[in-house]
Amino acid sequence: MNKPIETKIVVLGGLGEIGKNMYCVMHGDDIVIIDAGVSFPEGELLGIDYVLPDYTFLKENEKKIKALIITHGHEDHIGGIPFLLQTVNVPAIYAPNQAKELIALKLEDRNIRYDNLNVYTEDTILTFDQITVEFFRTTHSIPDSHGVCVTTPNGTLVTTGDFKFDLTPIGPVANLHKMAEIGKRGVTILLSDSTNALNEGMSTSESKVDTALNDIFDIYTNERIIIATFASNIYRLKHIVETCYKHNRKICVFGRSMDNNINISISGGYIDHKELFIQPEEVNQLKPNEVTILCTGSQGEPLAALSRIAAGTHKQIKLRPDDIVVFSSSTIPGNALSVSKTINKLYLKGVKVFTSTLMTDLHTSGHANEEELKLMIRLLMPKYLMPFHGEYRMLKHHADIGVECGMPKENTFILQNGDILSMVNGEIKKDGMIPAPDVYVDGNRIGEIGGAVLRDRKIMASDGILVVIANIDMHKRELLIKPNITTRGFILINENEELIHKIEGIAAASIREKLKDPNANFLDIKNQVTADLIPCIQKMTGRKPIILPVILDIKRTTTKA
Amino acid sequence: MNKPIETKIVVLGGLGEIGKNMYCVMHGDDIVIIDAGVSFPEGELLGIDYVLPDYTFLKENEKKIKALIITHGHEDHIGGIPFLLQTVNVPAIYAPNQAKELIALKLEDRNIRYDNLNVYTEDTILTFDQITVEFFRTTHSIPDSHGVCVTTPNGTLVTTGDFKFDLTPIGPVANLHKMAEIGKRGVTILLSDSTNALNEGMSTSESKVDTALNDIFDIYTNERIIIATFASNIYRLKHIVETCYKHNRKICVFGRSMDNNINISISGGYIDHKELFIQPEEVNQLKPNEVTILCTGSQGEPLAALSRIAAGTHKQIKLRPDDIVVFSSSTIPGNALSVSKTINKLYLKGVKVFTSTLMTDLHTSGHANEEELKLMIRLLMPKYLMPFHGEYRMLKHHADIGVECGMPKENTFILQNGDILSMVNGEIKKDGMIPAPDVYVDGNRIGEIGGAVLRDRKIMASDGILVVIANIDMHKRELLIKPNITTRGFILINENEELIHKIEGIAAASIREKLKDPNANFLDIKNQVTADLIPCIQKMTGRKPIILPVILDIKRTTTKA
Repeated sequence: MNKPIETKIVVLGGLGEIGKNMYCVMHGDDIVIIDAGVSFPEGELLGIDYVLPDYTFLKENEKKIKALIITHGHEDHIGGIPFLLQTVNVPAIYAPNQAKELIALKLEDRNIRYDNLNVYTEDTILTFDQITVEFFRTTHSIPDSHGVCVTTPNGTLVTTGDFKFDLTPIGPVANLHKMAEIGKRGVTILLSDSTNALNEGMSTSESKVDTALNDIFDIYTNERIIIATFASNIYRLKHIVETCYKHNRKICVFGRSMDNNINISISGGYIDHKELFIQPEEVNQLKPNEVTILCTGSQGEPLAALSRIAAGTHKQIKLRPDDIVVFSSSTIPGNALSVSKTINKLYLKGVKVFTSTLMTDLHTSGHANEEELKLMIRLLMPKYLMPFHGEYRMLKHHADIGVECGMPKENTFILQNGDILSMVNGEIKKDGMIPAPDVYVDGNRIGEIGGAVLRDRKIMASDGILVVIANIDMHKRELLIKPNITTRGFILINENEELIHKIEGIAAASIREKLKDPNANFLDIKNQVTADLIPCIQKMTGRKPIILPVILDIKRTTTKA
Repeated sequence: MNKPIETKIVVLGGLGEIGKNMYCVMHGDDIVIIDAGVSFPEGELLGIDYVLPDYTFLKENEKKIKALIITHGHEDHIGGIPFLLQTVNVPAIYAPNQAKELIALKLEDRNIRYDNLNVYTEDTILTFDQITVEFFRTTHSIPDSHGVCVTTPNGTLVTTGDFKFDLTPIGPVANLHKMAEIGKRGVTILLSDSTNALNEGMSTSESKVDTALNDIFDIYTNERIIIATFASNIYRLKHIVETCYKHNRKICVFGRSMDNNINISISGGYIDHKELFIQPEEVNQLKPNEVTILCTGSQGEPLAALSRIAAGTHKQIKLRPDDIVVFSSSTIPGNALSVSKTINKLYLKGVKVFTSTLMTDLHTSGHANEEELKLMIRLLMPKYLMPFHGEYRMLKHHADIGVECGMPKENTFILQNGDILSMVNGEIKKDGMIPAPDVYVDGNRIGEIGGAVLRDRKIMASDGILVVIANIDMHKRELLIKPNITTRGFILINENEELIHKIEGIAAASIREKLKDPNANFLDIKNQVTADLIPCIQKMTGRKPIILPVILDIKRTTTKA
């Protein structure tokens, strides 16, 4: 008897973090990838633009890749696509309509040609040899969000994508009946969204936000209203547009990402009232109560529209003291300081500011709270649960929620990126792991930036760099002239001549001393200069800049280039 | 008739920010300074250690300075003292006992000798010519916190220092009666703490935190308990020690600032049970339920004790899966990510974590909420109100609170650092301003770091630096050898030889081209190299490092040094 073909579930990203979601289901010679997200660097990752999963596993199994399936159009699910396509051949991408448009725009922006980008609907069934893929509609902050059901000969995997149960949503209701049906058919493992697993109860419906925004429009009938929100929150944008329609206000959009999302949503039919949108130059021709400004910058991002408006540096929009500014957003951890700065600037200009701290219903999350996670488990009745899309403590709480719903603790998998599960005949167990380090994109280069470069950036960010350039005659073992000292981010040379003079002296002495040792090579001299300068500079200035000695040999230097 | 001598109130720091509090009362030839704080740099201020107020006003009026009065021993009120003493002569400092000890330690640490550091009590009355200074006891998170009442011939100024009205405090109750008495005598202007002006109601009493902590000790009778809190919150430390005493646990302290504060508090008689404190090496000899670890790191500071314990890099303390970790703290905005990382690491180790988000009463602030601010206004009945110690929106709300308490709006002053108030015969008006820029301390140098150095640090933090070194013969107008390229924080040279080779080529061409122009000097050549390299490098790598060209003239170079 042949060994049965096992199904593997390989996690490339999205565990222990919120971002860069990517999961693979591999059965025999077929791999179906679910989502290809990026995450955005935090804290220590100086200068890094994006963080990607490591695609090595896919590179090594490139031939097996049958398709990439996208759950919805947010960056942490689609942002990696351009980089993935540069790395491996993906025969087909299947995405729901809104996501497909966003992906197309993304590929166009980066001049990537890709011919097999397909739209799926809730009724689509895809088959890749022995793998069948079906979909069910969920509610989230972007239209066309779907859960994915992957059936293999060894069992069925369901991933929720990002979801909440919004029972009075702005768009269509989640397809509870299809979830119930899939649950009845039998789900082996459920991968479920853990973002808000730490929040009790049920999340607030987007309709409550609708009401809160309406209230503001009802009260401030004479004032200009400026609303900042997440560009990715299409349903929020949709009901802001509808509120403007009801209150006879034109809308001017500031912020490229928001502009893109709105345009795509208008063409896709998700947002109506195209006629309300006006150009920046028209804003100042209208009365304050005839216009709403919709803009990016809810996180205090320095270059975003609202930040520039608050700072008084926005080209078209100058604040009026009677303006009303609404943050229809939450503050993402890590952005608290910049949001706070923006709010203080707005107060200084005398405008009224509403935030979700002052008025709770101005924002709600697109992710499920505890009770909604339970409802998902109850509907799908999975044998195993693998919480995903969350930091470790969220995954842990989500697994506890599974246990509360009656799952044996050993049937819950709290995993890390790179972990592999093996599914055979409805039984799942952990089956080793592959390396899954973060891969950094800096500028247009993927994965080239390593620890050394980041360490140098960190030191230079704090203490700068000091370059010591010396021409020597290596043959005669002589220093030709006192070393040239130049610095950046350390001190101003002009204001510190005495200090620079001392440093020159120390460097010169180091080099001369080392040259006396007939065995000392260039590296030895450099090391000596660094070793001698570090303590002196620290004593004199209290700082530890990078010391970069450059020793040039006059014999080689004077050879004409 | 002579013009009457006016009293001026000069704000050097503490407005529009939480930090570096410093106010001066000047009457005729006498200046009394209240507090001398530092603030800690945020965000953009790469590598800066402290931020100070600009002391220029004091330097210019050095002779008039009679004394520095300290309200309490927190860094944002005493941290500037070493720098102030390096800048101007301060004839005397008056501080309450706990603050005095902390100041003495601070001066000792920096080898600053200062002979006139005096302790005041609530009953002290100080007189400086026509200025009289009195004190009243408040409640705050550090013992010996006082409000200050400054009487001049033109009126009376009262500053609250940092306070809350904790009616069941761990230490002594605030002296409501003295406040009432001062209020009856007549207060011209009140400077009052605005930190929590945006919070409704009344702040939670420290006794509630005591109860919450006790509950944890009552439940986890077999486990080791690790508590992280603010080192500056002496009353919190005091009741943690008492809780340990009641539960028969020894205490081991990790973190230098906490150690200092506890030692000073024990000698000052603020904290009892000295016998409970044990050395690090004793911890592992005790059973888990016989010990409590008290440590710094509640803000996820990478080098603090708790962060190292969580990361598994702490020398003495290895986590046990049954450990209980308590954050008796709030997360200061800007630290959310690092706190979150620490908590995730703790979860990964399997320990139970309690934070004030999960269990509200594990922390309370030391600052007054809205109703307490009203109580202070009602007790002191000031004619004018100047909210201080807060960001702009807090000051604004605090002024609104004053208006709610019946003050005319024009009697509330929402000011900025550098603003001056003039008080004549009980009437106060704005009276111009002096420049009050932030002054940076970097290493051991005050005020030397300017915008250019910080801008360079920012660029290098993100994209690194590329140094181009070329030896030329300026006389013959020849480039002698291809330029030497070296980089830090940009790319790894070894892995990018082709790129470096291209850059060498571009730089060489630039220099040769420019040398053809007989009028081109060194600066012109450098500018040309930079101008040519920037677009090429950006195109090839997507990055914009600092380009630092160093052009050496062989004629001068080969002159023997």
